[in-house]
Amino acid sequence: MEKTSDVLTKKQILVATEETLRRFGIAKTSVTDVAKVLGVSHGSIYRHFNSKAELLEGVTEKWLIEKIIAPLSEVYLDSSLTGAALLKRYIQTLVELKHYYARDDEEMFQMYTRVTEQRADFIEQHIDHIVKQLADIITREGITSDQPAQLARTLFHATARFHHPAHAYEWKNPKIDQEFSDVWALLEHGIS
Amino acid sequence: MEKTSDVLTKKQILVATEETLRRFGIAKTSVTDVAKVLGVSHGSIYRHFNSKAELLEGVTEKWLIEKIIAPLSEVYLDSSLTGAALLKRYIQTLVELKHYYARDDEEMFQMYTRVTEQRADFIEQHIDHIVKQLADIITREGITSDQPAQLARTLFHATARFHHPAHAYEWKNPKIDQEFSDVWALLEHGIS
Repeated sequence: MEKTSDVLTKKQILVATEETLRRFGIAKTSVTDVAKVLGVSHGSIYRHFNSKAELLEGVTEKWLIEKIIAPLSEVYLDSSLTGAALLKRYIQTLVELKHYYARDDEEMFQMYTRVTEQRADFIEQHIDHIVKQLADIITREGITSDQPAQLARTLFHATARFHHPAHAYEWKNPKIDQEFSDVWALLEHGIS
Repeated sequence: MEKTSDVLTKKQILVATEETLRRFGIAKTSVTDVAKVLGVSHGSIYRHFNSKAELLEGVTEKWLIEKIIAPLSEVYLDSSLTGAALLKRYIQTLVELKHYYARDDEEMFQMYTRVTEQRADFIEQHIDHIVKQLADIITREGITSDQPAQLARTLFHATARFHHPAHAYEWKNPKIDQEFSDVWALLEHGIS
């Protein structure tokens, strides 16, 4: 066993994988490339991740936590807004973050899109986290006392076009912000 | 010029293309394969369609008209339902048709998904047709007098998760029907 691998952490591997992905792209990155960046054998990587797919999932999880969950949690804890306005700000922040990264961090967004397509179960945990925070806001702000968890999930589903990565091609349309506002107004007030 | 090509119609070519797609799959179907089925040279096909991509678009258009637009138009003309109930039935029919074909006509649905990804402008015309019928229902039924076209498009966007082909992987979940009902109820009555 090499000495280096003893102290190699999952986090170091994920940082090196992200660096490699940005340099070579998703298709051309191999486990061996990541090992080279770290100056270890590919066996040292396989001790932590069984495949390239697992590496991509690890990088996606790290990316989602740092880029999406962390700023959303700030909104969740923000005491300057209340009621439905806080709920809207939370979902609007989710939407704006997704649109920003789809445009300005294409490599990482493409990786996240790919993991979403192939590992629905993995992404489900990320969604559960968001739905849980939405449900907490609904309860805390007294928006409804009737099934906050269901309302939270329904709001997430009704706004999918604006945050699900499969719709990224529609986010380039300059009308997209107005369309989100229209959907939100309808969700808040209903048809009639 | 061959004799056969003189009488060869676009429709005959599309029927033969569909047959070929079902037999060989999208990836393996070539313009030459379609020509063979019709007993003509591939030049006869190119007189009507410039590429395999255009053939796929033609088949998708025919499929959308026959399988989605035709049954939706029946709901649009149905006088047994009124008001918001008719609006719900229309969108629910769209959702049910998409779920049905995603499951029971995989080859054609995959083709439609691919054209949606690659030719947003082409699919936009199909969406415009649906939004127009929704707006007509909204006006005719007196659901709102305030911007029926915008309400129609907003309803379409808020239900995208249930009819946009990129979400087909989520339609296998047995909760999907309940989730659509939840979204519809929220759209009808609003959060508060």
